[in-house]
Amino acid sequence: MNIPSKLIEQAVEQMSSLPGIGKKTALRLVLHLLNQDADKVAAFSNSFRQMRNGVLHCKQCHNVTEQEVCEICSNPERDASTLCVVEDIRALMAIEATWQFKGHYHVLGGIISPMDGVGPDDLNIDQLIKKAENGTTKEIILALSTTMEGDTTNFYIFRKLQDFPVHVSTIAKGISVGNELEYADEVTLGRSILNRLPYENSLVK
Amino acid sequence: MNIPSKLIEQAVEQMSSLPGIGKKTALRLVLHLLNQDADKVAAFSNSFRQMRNGVLHCKQCHNVTEQEVCEICSNPERDASTLCVVEDIRALMAIEATWQFKGHYHVLGGIISPMDGVGPDDLNIDQLIKKAENGTTKEIILALSTTMEGDTTNFYIFRKLQDFPVHVSTIAKGISVGNELEYADEVTLGRSILNRLPYENSLVK
Repeated sequence: MNIPSKLIEQAVEQMSSLPGIGKKTALRLVLHLLNQDADKVAAFSNSFRQMRNGVLHCKQCHNVTEQEVCEICSNPERDASTLCVVEDIRALMAIEATWQFKGHYHVLGGIISPMDGVGPDDLNIDQLIKKAENGTTKEIILALSTTMEGDTTNFYIFRKLQDFPVHVSTIAKGISVGNELEYADEVTLGRSILNRLPYENSLVK
Repeated sequence: MNIPSKLIEQAVEQMSSLPGIGKKTALRLVLHLLNQDADKVAAFSNSFRQMRNGVLHCKQCHNVTEQEVCEICSNPERDASTLCVVEDIRALMAIEATWQFKGHYHVLGGIISPMDGVGPDDLNIDQLIKKAENGTTKEIILALSTTMEGDTTNFYIFRKLQDFPVHVSTIAKGISVGNELEYADEVTLGRSILNRLPYENSLVK
């Protein structure tokens, strides 16, 4: 691609450094910006630097925040003795959107994935163990992706927590609400039979 | 979507103002930036503002440039008497990439599209007419998209140029090189028969 301006070329280079954005898409987006008012482009540009410099990670749970401690950890109405372990803040936001969890979170910052070079030491696991150790935590819910990497991370954390008086649970694996059985995969369907529930518990409230 | 930080929310807002980028994708891209070094994010941010402030439009052809006149218009080896009319610089770049055109360009800045509220007065058509009027232009090649809007714009320009001693042509419509006939649409295939070429001219050089 022979772009007739070095400045456009640099902008395309930067835009295509984002995951999933190729050179052609980047050029389309950059030319869109070129046609906008200078003020608008300045606001666009500033927003990312401001975010990078202004956003902190909560000292307690590693959620994003603009204070020392995030809104969830500093909310007195939430139960600090129940921790939900998530991979990143997108998972945290997804769980918050369900309105079904009123405890605190613990954001790992990733999952164990040897293929991507991510080991246990790269994640906020030690701090989670400490929370179990000091006795204030009663239950830890492992809410990681139901993939091989998620299962590996679950198992690693479970082993580390074994010696402490804390109840460790994982999110339920089963058939999605609204799905037809014939299209469900065998592993999920099999699990949903093994982990069957008393009828009263199965009603969506 | 309930984002736990105003700064991230603003960045997502800006990112999703780009065409084809929804809120979920924007959040994914913004969180990617959040995990990058501050220097990298600063370079990312600056590139767009620098581009918007530094890129000019060529006085002669409206191509993007960082000087008054673009590299193509100021190249003495290119033929200024043949003008190729294109919609935008993406089309210009596509034609340049073929290495088959050695004349100058004229970038309209869009095509006539009543649905999008774009009329002839919003485009650089008057300046094109002036180039035909002053007699220095021998041929004008209309290289717009082969859509209804492109055809309308072609017709509008053709009518405006009728009184001047300039040869007006359009790019050939026909079967793409490498395509099988049975999959071609009827209109294109019909045109390719009406506009058939002497065999010698049909060889890809």
